Order: sequence, then C-alpha cells, then structure tokens
Amino acid sequence: MSSLTHTVKAMVFDVFGSVVDWRGSIIRDLTRWGEQQGVQADWALLADKWRGLYQPQMERVRTGARPWTILDVLHRESLDQLLPEFGLAHLTESQRDHVNRVWHRLDAWPDSIAGLGRLKCRYIIGPLSNGNVALLTNMAKYAGLPWDAILSTELYRAYKPQPAAYLGVANILGLQPAEVMLCAAHNNDLGAARAAGLKTAFWPRQTEHGPGQTGDLRASESWDIVALDIRDLATQMGC
Amino acid sequence: MSSLTHTVKAMVFDVFGSVVDWRGSIIRDLTRWGEQQGVQADWALLADKWRGLYQPQMERVRTGARPWTILDVLHRESLDQLLPEFGLAHLTESQRDHVNRVWHRLDAWPDSIAGLGRLKCRYIIGPLSNGNVALLTNMAKYAGLPWDAILSTELYRAYKPQPAAYLGVANILGLQPAEVMLCAAHNNDLGAARAAGLKTAFWPRQTEHGPGQTGDLRASESWDIVALDIRDLATQMGC
Repeated sequence: MSSLTHTVKAMVFDVFGSVVDWRGSIIRDLTRWGEQQGVQADWALLADKWRGLYQPQMERVRTGARPWTILDVLHRESLDQLLPEFGLAHLTESQRDHVNRVWHRLDAWPDSIAGLGRLKCRYIIGPLSNGNVALLTNMAKYAGLPWDAILSTELYRAYKPQPAAYLGVANILGLQPAEVMLCAAHNNDLGAARAAGLKTAFWPRQTEHGPGQTGDLRASESWDIVALDIRDLATQMGC
Repeated sequence: MSSLTHTVKAMVFDVFGSVVDWRGSIIRDLTRWGEQQGVQADWALLADKWRGLYQPQMERVRTGARPWTILDVLHRESLDQLLPEFGLAHLTESQRDHVNRVWHRLDAWPDSIAGLGRLKCRYIIGPLSNGNVALLTNMAKYAGLPWDAILSTELYRAYKPQPAAYLGVANILGLQPAEVMLCAAHNNDLGAARAAGLKTAFWPRQTEHGPGQTGDLRASESWDIVALDIRDLATQMGC
C-alpha cells in the first residue's frame, strides 16, 4: 500500500450512493415536507422511479442527442414527468422547485464525514460527481462534507462514465491520471476510471437502493483498494 | 445591512493581495529556499517584477491575442523571462518548477482565516481568482483557507475584470448576480463586479505592494460594504 499512498495526490469521490444516502434522505425529507404541506405520496417509490430516469436522461446528453444540460435541469424534467402518476400534478412551481432541490439536501452515510476528514489531512479530496457545481456545493454545506474543491463533471461537460470526466479532473488539478484515485461504491464507475488511468477504491453500500439491492454488493475486480467504508479507506490510505 | 445579509447567498473573494499576502509570502519562501539551495537573489524585487508581468500576460489572453492559458503557465513564462536579470539563469527545470509553485504556497493575512470561518457558517464562500483551480486548491490546503468551492476564473475561461468572470460564478452557483458579493481589496475589481450586477465589499491591504504602496489605500466608491478587514466584514455581514 505504501507506493499507493505516495503516488496518489487527490482522491475524488462518486457521491450519490457512495458518500450520501440519496434514497433514505429523499424519503425522510419529502415525508416530513409532505406532512407540513398536507401532501401524501409513496415517496420511496418516487425516489426509485426518479433515480431510474437518471441514466436515460444523461445518456441523451452523452450521445449528443441534446446539448450539455446540468443535472438540476435533468432532475426537474424527470420530476415533472413523474408527478402525475403520484397524484402530485397539482404541485405549484415553488413546490416543484423545493422538491427538485431535495438532491441538494442529502445526508452522508454514517462513516463518510469522519473518513473524509481524515483523508483531507493528506490528500486533496473532492466529489467527481455528475451532480452540477451548485448542487454539490449546497449538498456539502447541508451535509457537512469537507471537500477541498467541487470537482463536478459539469466542469468538463462530460457525464461519467465518459473518459473526459476522469481525464478532466486530473487535468484541472494539474496531476497525472495515476496521481488521482476514484473512490466509489459502484464497480462500473471504477472500471471507467481505471480505463482512463486513475487509481481506484471501492467499498460497498449494500442498501443504497433499499433492502432488495442486487448490484454492487461487492467488488467485481481487484481494485487498488477494497474497503469496508470510507473510514476504513482512510485507514488503508495511511490516515 | 439587513436586506444585504438576506439577499446575498455567496461571497466570492479576490485572493492575491486581498486574502493572501503574496509579496511577503514569496519573499519569505524564496529566502528560506535560497539559503537551503545556496542561491542568492533580490527576492523582493523578483516578487515585484514577477507580479508586474501579471496584467500584461493576462491581457494577451483577454484580447484574444493568445488562446486561453492558465495562470500557472503565464507565471512560468514570466519567471523564465526574469531569471537571467537576477543571475538565476542556471536554475534547473526542477528548481524553476519549485519556484513557480511559490504561488501555491502563499500565507493568509492574519485576519483572513478567522473571518472566512465565520462567514462560511452563513454563506457559500469561495475564491473568484484568476489563479487556476490547481493553484487555488493547493493554496487553500497550504494556507488553511476554508473555501466551500474553488471558483476560479479558469472555469469560465475569462480573466477578471472581464464581465464573463463575474457572471460565470453566479451562473455556476445557480444564483442571480445580485445574490453574489465580490469581496476584494482592489477597487477596479469591485467596479467590474458592480457593473456585472454583483454586490461588493472592500477592505484595504495597505502593504500588499510593500511599504511604498500608493493605490487601493481606501475605497474609491460607496461599495455595499467597506470593512477594516475580513474579520470586520464577517461582523458586518451578521456572522
């Protein structure tokens, strides 16, 4: 491990699911908001269906079928599409905006903040997320994530797993790809990062998608680091 | 002041001279390095002449005479140009790179970290500097600057005082220009920010350029805030 801890200068993190619990946070946030507003819906199903539109929406940008569009806008389009089937077609513009910004109000998994705080002492840490800069900045303040820089894929106008996203973060930090480690709970993200020359670290989030999750339960390849969680990642990286 | 503290969501800072003492830091850093390396030069004069090439170098990018080029590269070209007249033409590539990165190793003025820490509790804080992302990220870790996001003009490919730099930071944060306050010790920077619709805050750094400084000793216009320093700015902004 010692050569790795000397080579790596920056550790960049997948965020949705890897650092923050988007599903649990959305259910908690919208349940409380719904009670305050007198609005009822199956918030867990909404969260799942909303996230289900995430990849198809980004894919239209990746393929060039539509020009670069930030995730806040994609999220809002998906939300507007889903609201009628949840009996929520009556939500006002202001309510829709508040619901859409639930992605700015996600809580960290229990180990994330402690682990990131330790890693920050030795490495540059930042999100490498498909979330846009405003989303990630607001989320960091909400959740208390101690990033050094907000390294959104918005900066490179390329959604992961496009190679330009991984190469873009190395370039903007003035580093070689091998000096950057992508840290994620998703094997496919890590595969694309490794193909671009980055180092890789995995830990599982076995309930990211709820109790019946079937994917990403364990490492699918021999990533440079396989950890229990971000706290264990910090230990393995010498922090 | 109360309407201002409710309107403003993000406070973005000029860095060189306003938050960090580039001149004093360069003299300290290179004097110590020179003693270790057995290299002597008039480091104060080098700092002044190096900074003197800053605006002319950026101006060639602003006018389109050369394509977008990050500040690390501009700094290096200026350094290479100056070394012979300081008797330093013999510096190796590795030594030149180390000297050039002195801009990544600048110390904050004594009030900066305390003031920024207080402002961070209420506002998004970040640099709006012509320094590139890598430079500002490394500087923040070196100096202990608690930024929420590194909002370099590199992200908008426009050097201040071009309007696109000020409008770019509002756009990437998902804010209106009037929800963003530019905070600086330089009147011309604030004038350009105000023209772009941003709020403005000034405090003087009367020895930024050394003991004989003549410019920016006081506010030249009625900026939204005129403070004694960043600690006082925090007080005036309700923190």
